[in-house]
Amino acid sequence: MGEFKHLVIVKFKEDVVVEDILKDLEKMVAEIDSVKSFEWGQDLESPEMLRQGFTHAFLTTFDKKEDYTVFVGHPKHQEFSATFSTVLEKIVLLDFPATLVKPPPKAPAEEPPATLNDQK
Amino acid sequence: MGEFKHLVIVKFKEDVVVEDILKDLEKMVAEIDSVKSFEWGQDLESPEMLRQGFTHAFLTTFDKKEDYTVFVGHPKHQEFSATFSTVLEKIVLLDFPATLVKPPPKAPAEEPPATLNDQK
Repeated sequence: MGEFKHLVIVKFKEDVVVEDILKDLEKMVAEIDSVKSFEWGQDLESPEMLRQGFTHAFLTTFDKKEDYTVFVGHPKHQEFSATFSTVLEKIVLLDFPATLVKPPPKAPAEEPPATLNDQK
Repeated sequence: MGEFKHLVIVKFKEDVVVEDILKDLEKMVAEIDSVKSFEWGQDLESPEMLRQGFTHAFLTTFDKKEDYTVFVGHPKHQEFSATFSTVLEKIVLLDFPATLVKPPPKAPAEEPPATLNDQK
């Protein structure tokens, strides 16, 4: 089993100072040791029809599911979540073991084994 | 500017053979060189209230936004998307430059610079 991911996408309420929330969020994940990494982004590109009002994605990565469980129960996470839920207009949350698929590297052009052919 | 991410969360229609779709999806991202990596997962944990029927997340990563643009316009992506849209009950899509925040390593206990103090 590979990494475990905690994915949150949100739309903030109007008049929310998103920068302040982001600072608190980055501080929270930095303070919880079981978090392996954290990345976030603000949608730039998607047609409104496809993003449906959601603007931000937050992706927290753990080495294993047990680390996620520690994170969920951590007092600093619970404290942050209580505040976070008050500034959101909507949220979707998915938690899943991640399957990583990398594109295979290009196969190098094979050289014919000339010397073997010569031996025929 | 760091990596660029293409995030898709979906709920499949009933009677869809998800395994077949996943195989086509993995094949598609493997065939498009501008895709740096691809990961996906099926939600295991979230309360229905929070996942709102969404079951799968797909995250495609690019080295830069230009690689994402190549991906979007690629014939193999367009062919896949045309089929993909027919098997979905709902979808949310976010595209964003990713900000990666890692928890800082624990600061080691600092040794006082004894020799400098001695020179006072």
